[in-house]
Amino acid sequence: MALIVQKYGGTSVGNIERIHNVAERVARAHRAGDQVVVVLSAMSGETDRLVKLAHEATPMPDEREMDMLLSTGERVTIALLAMDLRGRGINARSFTGRQVGIITDSAHTKARIARVTADRLREALDQGVIPVVAGFQGINEQSDVTTLGRGGSDLSAVALAAALKADRCIIFTDVDGVYTADPNVVPAAKRIDKIAYEEMLEMASLGAKVLQTRSVEFAAKFNVPVEVNSSFKEGKGTLVTREDADMEAVAVAGVTGDRNQAKITIVGVPDKPGIAARIFGPVAQAHVNVDMIIQNMGQDALTDLSFTVPRADLRKATPIIQGVAKEIEAKSVSITEAIAKVSLIGVGMRSHSGVASKMFEVLSREGINILMISTSEIKISCVIDEKYLELAMRSLHSAFGLDQVPQGDRSGK
Amino acid sequence: MALIVQKYGGTSVGNIERIHNVAERVARAHRAGDQVVVVLSAMSGETDRLVKLAHEATPMPDEREMDMLLSTGERVTIALLAMDLRGRGINARSFTGRQVGIITDSAHTKARIARVTADRLREALDQGVIPVVAGFQGINEQSDVTTLGRGGSDLSAVALAAALKADRCIIFTDVDGVYTADPNVVPAAKRIDKIAYEEMLEMASLGAKVLQTRSVEFAAKFNVPVEVNSSFKEGKGTLVTREDADMEAVAVAGVTGDRNQAKITIVGVPDKPGIAARIFGPVAQAHVNVDMIIQNMGQDALTDLSFTVPRADLRKATPIIQGVAKEIEAKSVSITEAIAKVSLIGVGMRSHSGVASKMFEVLSREGINILMISTSEIKISCVIDEKYLELAMRSLHSAFGLDQVPQGDRSGK
Repeated sequence: MALIVQKYGGTSVGNIERIHNVAERVARAHRAGDQVVVVLSAMSGETDRLVKLAHEATPMPDEREMDMLLSTGERVTIALLAMDLRGRGINARSFTGRQVGIITDSAHTKARIARVTADRLREALDQGVIPVVAGFQGINEQSDVTTLGRGGSDLSAVALAAALKADRCIIFTDVDGVYTADPNVVPAAKRIDKIAYEEMLEMASLGAKVLQTRSVEFAAKFNVPVEVNSSFKEGKGTLVTREDADMEAVAVAGVTGDRNQAKITIVGVPDKPGIAARIFGPVAQAHVNVDMIIQNMGQDALTDLSFTVPRADLRKATPIIQGVAKEIEAKSVSITEAIAKVSLIGVGMRSHSGVASKMFEVLSREGINILMISTSEIKISCVIDEKYLELAMRSLHSAFGLDQVPQGDRSGK
Repeated sequence: MALIVQKYGGTSVGNIERIHNVAERVARAHRAGDQVVVVLSAMSGETDRLVKLAHEATPMPDEREMDMLLSTGERVTIALLAMDLRGRGINARSFTGRQVGIITDSAHTKARIARVTADRLREALDQGVIPVVAGFQGINEQSDVTTLGRGGSDLSAVALAAALKADRCIIFTDVDGVYTADPNVVPAAKRIDKIAYEEMLEMASLGAKVLQTRSVEFAAKFNVPVEVNSSFKEGKGTLVTREDADMEAVAVAGVTGDRNQAKITIVGVPDKPGIAARIFGPVAQAHVNVDMIIQNMGQDALTDLSFTVPRADLRKATPIIQGVAKEIEAKSVSITEAIAKVSLIGVGMRSHSGVASKMFEVLSREGINILMISTSEIKISCVIDEKYLELAMRSLHSAFGLDQVPQGDRSGK
């Protein structure tokens, strides 16, 4: 008898019809003899509706009150699913984040889980009850409702799976797994059978929106096997798990593309010690994440310094950089929004050499100029002209053999 | 500095515009120097929407799950009002039924309040915070959410006022008080300035839907002065309070009409001891409330036994009565739905004689036949043909001097 945490997202519980489907899926796992804990999001659209109400009430809604408001969405779906299951003669019970003991800090609207007691959950499971738990929410030490930020229900599910030492945490969503690339961009993309936590983290933070980043970190930390699967069709999904030998057999697991970047170049920076700190200190203080940084030594002891920031932060970063540039007597500041980042990800890079040079070669063959490069142990990213992003992704996907079913059991179908 | 509990019903918080109005009203009381505790219902229509969802999910929704579902409505309004107030620079905070310590039994969907701790509420008030509390909800000893039944927010407000020993509990609603009769039926009806708990109870249970009956009982028990007032306009309301000399000066405080009754007559009942128990035992077991009973002695040791039941219970009661009638060898059973009950209410009846005879005289003068009569210390009710109800109410209202502003300060303008 396995203990399985099943999490269903907003579109999977978007209306009563879909809640019936979830009930059937839960009932099936129950009849198959598994112990099931269900974690739900709010109905799709409900959170947006509540946010809109809040902004109609007042321009800058208080965050504690926002949590009181938003946490209602999940209570609605857990009650509906629990009554649906009970109507089928299945002993289900809804529980709030508080009731299952998800204790967080007090950072309202983006709280972090401090601990999970799960006492009441264990008790329910011992009594043969199927607990239906509200995702996205917890309480702080003052017993006030908190929420875990966008995608927080994934985190709730993984945290409960960790606390219960569940055999698996299945994230049911509207896609059937993690792909070697975005299938909308790369039609030849294949579903990956098994992916390492680290790879998934890189995928998630680089724009593959399947799993919330913090939930992957949490799963890795507590070694929770997470499966991503479709709530709308039957079949295999993607298992996110510890790195193993199979995974290392393949150099590149996936290709990602990210358009949410902008490039800032400070031209003619006097090359003196401490200059970098004077530039990036104020940027960090404004909570702007700088991603890549490159420095080109020019003549006259002047260098050009380029770096990327999230496109959404550009408006915030620009005046700061212009101020600093003036202070340090740089020549000028230039900004480019029309860039994109293409990345190759794979734990196999640790043992396979030549991935980077092959990547540069492929891009060069396609006539794509590389503006910036950054590498980590399991990732290589190149910043390129935005208009070449799709071409770059497709070429790399093909060149690294991802169009075919690769060796090992990394990829499905 | 007075401590005031203000309760706003569903229509008073039915949209953001109205929530703004409530915020302004609360802010005004706060600026005037009062300590204010606000209790809210769900937005009008929201509870119905959730009930509909539940019945779409499953035909007979589980009651614990129903409470989980329904209790979300009040959480939405308290969050919205609290953020609205905070947006105006007023230190308000939302609290759930659990957070203010409304502890109930486990009778889900119709729970009874066991005790109110209100610790967190006192703490908030001491800190100058305006607590905005979710009405209608509490938790049981297992820490599961419960609800107090329709109109339960009135009860929440009165219970909190009792726990805090508040100076007044104001129920803001869509009418500006309690009237001497339903103004839709009796255009000359006047708002009553002050009414005794007992009178209000009779009014409430006889069909004046201004205040939930249990909340009046609770107010009487803990001597909480309750004011009924309009949330849409300014002015005096009705104060529900302890009986006093002013009230006794007037024989009749109000006239009520009730159409939700049906009359069942068992014809030709053998007049033997124990017959009444054999008839009414099974009716009580089916949870049908029998209101009035009369017995007419006929010839041959046979009597006719008539009684009234709520019209909604008629379908449930009829087969039971037909079964019993057969068993006790009564002649037949006849059922009349087209009846109504007109009542006069007033604590002054205790000291004024002749109210009953005057009532019969007025009805007789109008050619209205009295089918049944029942009296209590402060009430006289007559069952009449339904079609005469409005006529009866208007005639009695006028005959007992309620069309004029009466002596004492019982009635307003």
